[in-house]
Amino acid sequence: MSADLVSRLAAILGPSGLLADEADMASYAIDWRRLFPGRPLCVARPASTAEVSEVVKACRAAGAAIVPQGGNTGLAGGAVPDASGGQVVLSLTRMNKVRAVDPVGLTISADAGCILKVAQDAAAEAGRLLPISLAAEGSATLGGVVSTNAGGVNVVRYGMARALVLGLEVVLADGTIVDMARQLRKDNAGYDLKQLFIGTEGTLGIVTGAVLRLVPRPRHTVTALLSVPSPQAALDLLALAQEELGDTLSAFELMSGYSFDLLKRHLNLTPPIASGDWFVLLEAGASLSGLREAAEAALAAALENGTALDGVIAETGAQATQLWALREHITDGEAREGKSMKHDVSVPIVDVPAFLEAADIAIENGAPGAKVNAFGHLGDGNIHYNVVLAPGQDGAAINTLVHDVVARFAGSISAEHGIGQYRVDELLLRRAPAEIALARTLKTALDPDDFLNPGKVLPAGG
Amino acid sequence: MSADLVSRLAAILGPSGLLADEADMASYAIDWRRLFPGRPLCVARPASTAEVSEVVKACRAAGAAIVPQGGNTGLAGGAVPDASGGQVVLSLTRMNKVRAVDPVGLTISADAGCILKVAQDAAAEAGRLLPISLAAEGSATLGGVVSTNAGGVNVVRYGMARALVLGLEVVLADGTIVDMARQLRKDNAGYDLKQLFIGTEGTLGIVTGAVLRLVPRPRHTVTALLSVPSPQAALDLLALAQEELGDTLSAFELMSGYSFDLLKRHLNLTPPIASGDWFVLLEAGASLSGLREAAEAALAAALENGTALDGVIAETGAQATQLWALREHITDGEAREGKSMKHDVSVPIVDVPAFLEAADIAIENGAPGAKVNAFGHLGDGNIHYNVVLAPGQDGAAINTLVHDVVARFAGSISAEHGIGQYRVDELLLRRAPAEIALARTLKTALDPDDFLNPGKVLPAGG
Repeated sequence: MSADLVSRLAAILGPSGLLADEADMASYAIDWRRLFPGRPLCVARPASTAEVSEVVKACRAAGAAIVPQGGNTGLAGGAVPDASGGQVVLSLTRMNKVRAVDPVGLTISADAGCILKVAQDAAAEAGRLLPISLAAEGSATLGGVVSTNAGGVNVVRYGMARALVLGLEVVLADGTIVDMARQLRKDNAGYDLKQLFIGTEGTLGIVTGAVLRLVPRPRHTVTALLSVPSPQAALDLLALAQEELGDTLSAFELMSGYSFDLLKRHLNLTPPIASGDWFVLLEAGASLSGLREAAEAALAAALENGTALDGVIAETGAQATQLWALREHITDGEAREGKSMKHDVSVPIVDVPAFLEAADIAIENGAPGAKVNAFGHLGDGNIHYNVVLAPGQDGAAINTLVHDVVARFAGSISAEHGIGQYRVDELLLRRAPAEIALARTLKTALDPDDFLNPGKVLPAGG
Repeated sequence: MSADLVSRLAAILGPSGLLADEADMASYAIDWRRLFPGRPLCVARPASTAEVSEVVKACRAAGAAIVPQGGNTGLAGGAVPDASGGQVVLSLTRMNKVRAVDPVGLTISADAGCILKVAQDAAAEAGRLLPISLAAEGSATLGGVVSTNAGGVNVVRYGMARALVLGLEVVLADGTIVDMARQLRKDNAGYDLKQLFIGTEGTLGIVTGAVLRLVPRPRHTVTALLSVPSPQAALDLLALAQEELGDTLSAFELMSGYSFDLLKRHLNLTPPIASGDWFVLLEAGASLSGLREAAEAALAAALENGTALDGVIAETGAQATQLWALREHITDGEAREGKSMKHDVSVPIVDVPAFLEAADIAIENGAPGAKVNAFGHLGDGNIHYNVVLAPGQDGAAINTLVHDVVARFAGSISAEHGIGQYRVDELLLRRAPAEIALARTLKTALDPDDFLNPGKVLPAGG
């Protein structure tokens, strides 16, 4: 049966469209963090939406589950197969074209396998901005960005990926192609069915194309690094920035003093300002002049009233890049320090200081010797609360400690990374039964045979 | 059975919670345009989410369908009962409290029956903006705004209602309360189930509470009226405004010369600028200074290169209100001219000029003597393409003419007003069978007995 399916897929896809050799399939079989090794039956690489539909029908007829995969940059193992050797990886990477850019209507249309960076560049060439910015943008695909409702550093201004999706083209579990790739800013004609496929990690359908919203590209940008005495001071600074800069604020990142210790110790990176217990990196962009003056006035006010201890505004693009490099190397510094448990949590923005305090106490008491490397998107209430383990410490127990505190603040155990296979059990534990039941209703309605990416988001077999 | 249900509901809700007298029920039985007269069995007015759940269970046990209703300001008959006398109107208007405003986290939480204007005012008191602005804001409720994915004049900057919904509290068809009223900006822990209840007009569940996103309130506002030679010139002006003003642009309205004729003829309203064939009303807001200078420069450039023929920027708030009054009275002027067919359509923004030309030709040829009153949200590609009928003309035929042209541009037959009962048949005709089938799958999964608002969006009985 399996051999039959592989031949059938080879007939549909041609020689360049199918990989069945173990060495060829290696990079598709495991996620890039190498936490979730799998073994696919084969890797199907369709070149068109029609081919995707044919692959789905053939796999369905053969009873082989499908695992959709884009750039394979996910952090939750959502795009890799299990170890059974029976699942078919459906890679969208050959469908990689920008279909159209409309600078006046502010849209970009592209295949699901189009690399995010390629789409960003196409928008920039047309003088517009695709405002999704994340570490994996050189490899992540638009289909993956949509299917995982990706976040990144600009969510505070532009929202998650969902907020930018105007249209989708999707293949359902029975192979039906649903073309909703409309270029409309407003469309209330019936249920907005594309929402079903955003952030559901390929478990309800396969995204094959997308129309995303663009925005005008700001002419002026300000990047600033400040040291602050506490998370509460960082929150006060956020309020001040909202007041003075309005919604020009496009990034507001909080980083702990410990994060900066790691940068110095392992990467010899130091900030160009006096140290504090915490740091804030903020960015704002505007078409209007007057941005820099407003930012300078806000910084002066913050230094004057003690909200900030020290601060610098980048004078050049190169300086801005240096400031961002501090933020971007924190994960690297952490990896060099030792084994860590990562947590991608969110709480209501105003509760971030209380959350950090409560979580620190929980770790101090429950896992003495562990070190907390907290940083993330304060402007969204999203903290990467990573814990560097002391020798012999139990990661799972620390995970429970942290997520118990998240629950006390009615927060989320996955703010932007999704559930994948990584947090399926935890989701069942943490979400109310009524929500889990409703999610199952949806999965059963759209994929009754549990054929699309089984075991991701919800347990395999329901 | 019906009398039993009424007594049962009276027992749940108390004397002030149930209306069963015909006179008391009159305003709940028909929409405000008086196009869809219905007759309810009774009107249930619960005071809490728990009561909503009890009402749903009682109606379900008795086999009486439920029609959720907010401010009853919808334009598609989505919130009124049929004429059978057997449906129960569930009015949310007694659940009308603002639950909380968070000016730093930029959220407002409220009951579904909270009036939009009340929520706007609560946000303003906290120095923030709830950026949903529509004609019915003094009566429309947040639950209705969410359930219909309301639009309005600020969509160009802030998106439809969906873009502002952070959390929802919902009652399902079996009475289960699903509390997703989280105050999180980011939450990718499992399916985003609240999306199911946004824009689905109460057919999949009943919204009982909402958490909406607020934005910083712009300190400076610019309102300008310009006359332009053509829709294409208006589009060129939009591109210019995007270039010069960036995403400070919060409204970009197109109005035809005929719209202004109606204003003058019936309401004695005249614009303070030289007439053109078309007019644009634009508004922009920013926290930064320099907005007015940028707007003046853009206007000068537009006059210089012939994109605009004449233009004025409001000097005071009162002048801005006068400019907006022109836009807001167009529907009134149209009503005084005679009977009209209204169309709330959208096409890709860049196709608006070609759409208007093609639709005008279709009307000229297919319905000679009819007059086109076109106006709307050019910045979103959403045109209210209303047609004032000549004596004896057939509205339905004109409707078909217009929507046939919409189809040629891959547009939408309902950009912001929804489907309700008004456009159910047309939706079946205009949407691809795959989309209709998927919508039915969803309806069947969440409301298998067609018990929630039957006959709205999809035909009754599937």
